[in-house]
Amino acid sequence: MITTLPQPTKRKPDTAIYERLESAVRSYARSMPRQFARAEGVWMHDNQGGRYLDFLSGCSTLNYGHNHPVLKSALMDYIAGNGITHGLDLHTDAKADFLAALEQVILKPRGLDYRAMFTGPTGTNAVEAAIKLARKVTGRELVIAFTNGFHGMTLGALACTGNAAKRSGAGIPLSHVAHEPFEGYHGPQIDTAELLERRLADPSSGLDAPAAILVETVQGEGGLNAASPEWLREIAAIAKRHGALMIVDDIQAGCGRAGSFFSFEGMGFTPDIVTMAKSLSGMGLPFALALFRPELDQWSPGEHNGTFRGNNHAFVTAAAALRHFWSDGQFQQDIARRSRMLERRLDAMASEHGLSTRGRGMIRGIDIGSGKIAQAVTAACFAQGLIIETSGAHDEIVKVLAPLVIDDAVLSAGLDILEESIRAALPLAYGVAAE
Amino acid sequence: MITTLPQPTKRKPDTAIYERLESAVRSYARSMPRQFARAEGVWMHDNQGGRYLDFLSGCSTLNYGHNHPVLKSALMDYIAGNGITHGLDLHTDAKADFLAALEQVILKPRGLDYRAMFTGPTGTNAVEAAIKLARKVTGRELVIAFTNGFHGMTLGALACTGNAAKRSGAGIPLSHVAHEPFEGYHGPQIDTAELLERRLADPSSGLDAPAAILVETVQGEGGLNAASPEWLREIAAIAKRHGALMIVDDIQAGCGRAGSFFSFEGMGFTPDIVTMAKSLSGMGLPFALALFRPELDQWSPGEHNGTFRGNNHAFVTAAAALRHFWSDGQFQQDIARRSRMLERRLDAMASEHGLSTRGRGMIRGIDIGSGKIAQAVTAACFAQGLIIETSGAHDEIVKVLAPLVIDDAVLSAGLDILEESIRAALPLAYGVAAE
Amino acid sequence: MITTLPQPTKRKPDTAIYERLESAVRSYARSMPRQFARAEGVWMHDNQGGRYLDFLSGCSTLNYGHNHPVLKSALMDYIAGNGITHGLDLHTDAKADFLAALEQVILKPRGLDYRAMFTGPTGTNAVEAAIKLARKVTGRELVIAFTNGFHGMTLGALACTGNAAKRSGAGIPLSHVAHEPFEGYHGPQIDTAELLERRLADPSSGLDAPAAILVETVQGEGGLNAASPEWLREIAAIAKRHGALMIVDDIQAGCGRAGSFFSFEGMGFTPDIVTMAKSLSGMGLPFALALFRPELDQWSPGEHNGTFRGNNHAFVTAAAALRHFWSDGQFQQDIARRSRMLERRLDAMASEHGLSTRGRGMIRGIDIGSGKIAQAVTAACFAQGLIIETSGAHDEIVKVLAPLVIDDAVLSAGLDILEESIRAALPLAYGVAAE
Amino acid sequence: MITTLPQPTKRKPDTAIYERLESAVRSYARSMPRQFARAEGVWMHDNQGGRYLDFLSGCSTLNYGHNHPVLKSALMDYIAGNGITHGLDLHTDAKADFLAALEQVILKPRGLDYRAMFTGPTGTNAVEAAIKLARKVTGRELVIAFTNGFHGMTLGALACTGNAAKRSGAGIPLSHVAHEPFEGYHGPQIDTAELLERRLADPSSGLDAPAAILVETVQGEGGLNAASPEWLREIAAIAKRHGALMIVDDIQAGCGRAGSFFSFEGMGFTPDIVTMAKSLSGMGLPFALALFRPELDQWSPGEHNGTFRGNNHAFVTAAAALRHFWSDGQFQQDIARRSRMLERRLDAMASEHGLSTRGRGMIRGIDIGSGKIAQAVTAACFAQGLIIETSGAHDEIVKVLAPLVIDDAVLSAGLDILEESIRAALPLAYGVAAE
Repeated sequence: MITTLPQPTKRKPDTAIYERLESAVRSYARSMPRQFARAEGVWMHDNQGGRYLDFLSGCSTLNYGHNHPVLKSALMDYIAGNGITHGLDLHTDAKADFLAALEQVILKPRGLDYRAMFTGPTGTNAVEAAIKLARKVTGRELVIAFTNGFHGMTLGALACTGNAAKRSGAGIPLSHVAHEPFEGYHGPQIDTAELLERRLADPSSGLDAPAAILVETVQGEGGLNAASPEWLREIAAIAKRHGALMIVDDIQAGCGRAGSFFSFEGMGFTPDIVTMAKSLSGMGLPFALALFRPELDQWSPGEHNGTFRGNNHAFVTAAAALRHFWSDGQFQQDIARRSRMLERRLDAMASEHGLSTRGRGMIRGIDIGSGKIAQAVTAACFAQGLIIETSGAHDEIVKVLAPLVIDDAVLSAGLDILEESIRAALPLAYGVAAE
Repeated sequence: MITTLPQPTKRKPDTAIYERLESAVRSYARSMPRQFARAEGVWMHDNQGGRYLDFLSGCSTLNYGHNHPVLKSALMDYIAGNGITHGLDLHTDAKADFLAALEQVILKPRGLDYRAMFTGPTGTNAVEAAIKLARKVTGRELVIAFTNGFHGMTLGALACTGNAAKRSGAGIPLSHVAHEPFEGYHGPQIDTAELLERRLADPSSGLDAPAAILVETVQGEGGLNAASPEWLREIAAIAKRHGALMIVDDIQAGCGRAGSFFSFEGMGFTPDIVTMAKSLSGMGLPFALALFRPELDQWSPGEHNGTFRGNNHAFVTAAAALRHFWSDGQFQQDIARRSRMLERRLDAMASEHGLSTRGRGMIRGIDIGSGKIAQAVTAACFAQGLIIETSGAHDEIVKVLAPLVIDDAVLSAGLDILEESIRAALPLAYGVAAE
Repeated sequence: MITTLPQPTKRKPDTAIYERLESAVRSYARSMPRQFARAEGVWMHDNQGGRYLDFLSGCSTLNYGHNHPVLKSALMDYIAGNGITHGLDLHTDAKADFLAALEQVILKPRGLDYRAMFTGPTGTNAVEAAIKLARKVTGRELVIAFTNGFHGMTLGALACTGNAAKRSGAGIPLSHVAHEPFEGYHGPQIDTAELLERRLADPSSGLDAPAAILVETVQGEGGLNAASPEWLREIAAIAKRHGALMIVDDIQAGCGRAGSFFSFEGMGFTPDIVTMAKSLSGMGLPFALALFRPELDQWSPGEHNGTFRGNNHAFVTAAAALRHFWSDGQFQQDIARRSRMLERRLDAMASEHGLSTRGRGMIRGIDIGSGKIAQAVTAACFAQGLIIETSGAHDEIVKVLAPLVIDDAVLSAGLDILEESIRAALPLAYGVAAE
Repeated sequence: MITTLPQPTKRKPDTAIYERLESAVRSYARSMPRQFARAEGVWMHDNQGGRYLDFLSGCSTLNYGHNHPVLKSALMDYIAGNGITHGLDLHTDAKADFLAALEQVILKPRGLDYRAMFTGPTGTNAVEAAIKLARKVTGRELVIAFTNGFHGMTLGALACTGNAAKRSGAGIPLSHVAHEPFEGYHGPQIDTAELLERRLADPSSGLDAPAAILVETVQGEGGLNAASPEWLREIAAIAKRHGALMIVDDIQAGCGRAGSFFSFEGMGFTPDIVTMAKSLSGMGLPFALALFRPELDQWSPGEHNGTFRGNNHAFVTAAAALRHFWSDGQFQQDIARRSRMLERRLDAMASEHGLSTRGRGMIRGIDIGSGKIAQAVTAACFAQGLIIETSGAHDEIVKVLAPLVIDDAVLSAGLDILEESIRAALPLAYGVAAE
């Protein structure tokens, strides 16, 4: 069907203004050299009339697609009525409504008793707040994070991030954090939770008593490594045994991406602290949240603050998103069905080329084995109008982060493009390798 | 005239949902216990029909007032047209338009050659990016900040912040930063720039060679201390002499608050790096920016990133704000006129009670001498519908951060309330002190 | 034979002066409450006429026994002739003579091309100098040390030490060091060198590129874990591959303790830096040394210094010791013979009780399995005049550090006491456990 | 009189062995290229028969001269009798005797109630122990040290040291220490104690609450700046007021060098902790000590240790030195008389050339104004057989550290050499400058 296919523009637009004025730090714009004008649902449109299918979703920020009509309408009404746009941490109608939706739609049905802290509206702010709180409550300084973990770019969160290129940007040594091996890091024979337990139980291991263990259930930037429920339960037990708080960074895997609202649902443990951002506002607006057990809420007023910690536009769209998508089980069932299709299709592609897949729910990818070839795949996809990116220590994983609301037929059409692009890139790669 | 007066609600609203669900870290909501519903211009309205005059302006985030019709209209049009809401750092029409406005309206007329980096959309993200860049470019690690400086709450920026209560929230020692005395810190006789020069010139002072000197021209949170052009020029010269970059944190004092778009205009020096946030989007949307000389733009692609670094709604309102307010000199003249009124009125109040004033442009305050009495003043103001807050190490400064667009008559009416509140609080205070 | 047996005093001496004046930090004096007056060879004499056999040897500082006549005579002659006692780092006859002995007796025969740096005369000073140099030469900051490693108590060396009780004494977080698992730490199935290689080869492991890998070939304080030549060679190869310097801390295992002068001889690799102290002076005088490849000698004059870095008395005794014990192979053969006896006897004791042994050469022990029982063993030994101590994370290893010059018959007699003490302590222990 | 004059050797000795084997880090040996063989009192003899007058005294380590017969005799008797040489921290006759002497000769007469901790036998070890203890006792992390302070080269002490060349040797950023201006640092008009008080009293100064204030009463390496009793009392009061411990580092200025046994005697305050080393053993043997109020003695057994922490040879000579020199007031009177002569002579030299002097007691110098010329002065002195060195941030101070036991006539003769060398160097210097 014609409407399922992208129609990319072939010609690069004029980018002189970016080259003249924007910092060299920009990245995605380099591999996807178009100027985008508008977007709705799974489609992005450039300023030359081209149409692109979005399998990146703002790195999981647009789980509900671009400009979802329900959210958009709620926001426009709010703005039209001169709703509070910026109110520091003052009480507003929009905040009260968001809190009510969070309680009724999310926390109560899941039996979770959490307090919500509106940190600065970026994921890294939420992570900073979470580790500050863990250090304050425990009186300890070390945070245990994991190999390939990604938690943000401000210094506290960056210290928890594994990636060497990001870390070296700090310009100072990053301290007070130890990176331990994630599940499967040392191969299937070695239980890395056991390694961690041994070190924490040993007073001579050199690993100080930790304030927190900070973990992603699926490592979004670090290669789509999905931890098993067993391993995560063991990590939770280790944290408890050693007096540390368990923080689940659900910024990328949460909001339905891994299959349920929180990525850890049904796994048999409850994190002490959860960080959320990305798709939380539903519409791509800056918004972040730290949730924690009430007895951990030991903040003094204003001890951690931030000018934009109450982004009221985001309160509005987030409340609308929670109510629209999570009030019953339909959306979760849709995600499950699409996840199965995604899994089946990726497994087939992997099997065809002797490759392996990664991930869980709608955060999945295929390990191409080389960052260079993976980039050739994504470039070929983009040439056909499919926006898709890589992940992993060497950018060797092509990751599919389609909007969760994607039509099954469109998902299938996008995966066709990916399948062909892998076929096109891999023989070439082997040919190059054979020379 | 009746329309210049607030009409506050006397009754506190139901706050059960906040107490049940929101973290104890909330602060402003405690001293201003109302639930706000909508706002326009200088007025905020609560959900019981009360009307409040805003002399806080989101801590200088709402320099153009709440929901300015020009910005609001631009944003609604953009949303209605399904403009890109979230696009990571992809090129968008909205970004291109903002860059064009920044170049034409701000940079070119001021002869500034800067590159723009869209950091995560909070001030602290911009500061983190700035100090990272300075450390990377210089290969040095120490940042020199100043007593009473405030730069944010993530660990890198928090290390630069002077406030002990904020600092202790870190839970770890904050390193790689030295705080040197701001202008006037040791009294009028001591030139603190000379003290700094002496220490940097002395290889045995224990002060390592710095990557950057980070300074606010007016210390917004730290007591409205306004540095003189002479002192700032000397600091700029010291930075240059010792191979450090000069970073002006213009997050609170910029965007017209201190009288001109950049707070350092006309002072005879050009910072190497400037950080901006707060009023940059014009409408209170999360948005932050680091500007720096092109030769400092040594970032690798993606070396510093962040999910919300391209807040397109903010691009739209920011571009509209730049064009509407800064295309000619009218707005700056209005600010100057209001500043003079503010200065005159505050001087009179100070003189009446033997107090002193602080600040510059439209970021001014009166030193009440005690945090407790200052709080009594602001509480009395709030009871009459004036939203106003304190600043300073002991919260002893009552600060006036009225929207820059405020009508002269309304400004005057608000200052009347402040004047009366000081009169009411001070005798009481002296009475208390006398007992 | 009567002369092989200790004759301990039963009565505790008056210790009022220590309790009144000496810090509570003293430790050995608590478990061995006697006041010692003189010592020669393997025997220590208390001030009440008691005689004790020394199986502690100043924690391997007295490999040649107490007051060896050759060293004592050389020192007395030197003092009598008004030889330089203290000369900072000035050239002295004593220093020149030590350097000549080091070159002729030690370095040349082993084909080692090292420069000698006289650091402050304690082991921790040598470790501090070694890691400083590694950081300077590589321009990197991280040092990799190992679980259960012990390297000293000043902050740089303490950061490399694994023991939590020692580490917590710092009062600040110890940074810039990562502790990786020593050989066998995770059981015989897991090759910890492979784990380390994987982490260093992975740009997303969170382990920064190291300046140095710091290792003991036998962990003296950490439980007498002896690394295999294969593992050490692999560690050396990993260091080389990743641009790090390999530092062998030979402070406790060197000077013949592990069987040869350097503990790593004949293992197929050459460390970039070696630290030495303890038995280096031969007579127990404070003396430490860092040895490194000439091309690493990138120090500026005085960049690392210390008042006592030229302990000339130690130069004299050290030169005499090198010449007396290491000019031919006899001493090494004696050590080998005694090592075999020690190994045989400890294996028999372990076998009798189902325990295991640790160590190599003359640094061996028996794992009692519990610090409490191990302490009962050493207390029982002391009651019979045998000075012996524990090692390990839980003080659960009874370690034999007899002087290397010990008579075979005396060694045997001392081991008899140990054997009986274990027999006496273990049934009691089991009895206690059974209740 | 002929015996008061040095008789230096003109010819440099063979130094091949040092160049081949000793690290480039050596420093004094470069400016005094002789090989020394023996020494007694104030005289050092090289291996070619030359005789040198020692105005360096091992940087104040040889306050009683070289090989003082009383100390030498005590040590030889002890060694001859097989006294314990090395005993870890076991009780020994030698330790008991030292503690008794310390109590009777030093502490009791001065009304001081201190516990003694035998740290590793170098000054830097004592400083590390002192700051560890202060951090442990207060639960705080920051140490305040001063500009131009010198406290040692291990990482904890080095962080407290001001000198940039020494600091940069660390290879990592040195943290948890702030350097505040010493007395007079900003000229005579500015009271730096007031500056410090202001910063500590200000919760927004960025200076965290300190665990300790670490100060030398006379800065030995940092330019012989002598603090006044008034300033030191004020620092002590500031420490007390803000809950910090005051640590006097008396390693260089103590043991009579500044005129009394402790450099702070009679000043009206009592430090919480005192560090000692250098001349403590009396004969130049490695020995260090931390003294502190009994209630601060909160160490766990072995929490800070070190192999050589009981240097028994040093106990013997130290006890002998305390009894010989400090049992009555004669020695202190001799020091006072020689100090006056030194002061008078240096003042005259300074006055002749328009220079200034520094220091107090027998730790005094003359500010030559340039490191290059100061080096010319010391080189000219050495050519005439006078061993003398420089101090200060730029090595611009020629410092006189003659043994305290020096004969008045010999002191005078040495000062004659210095006087002539200054005369010779200064016109040359001006000549050079004039070109």
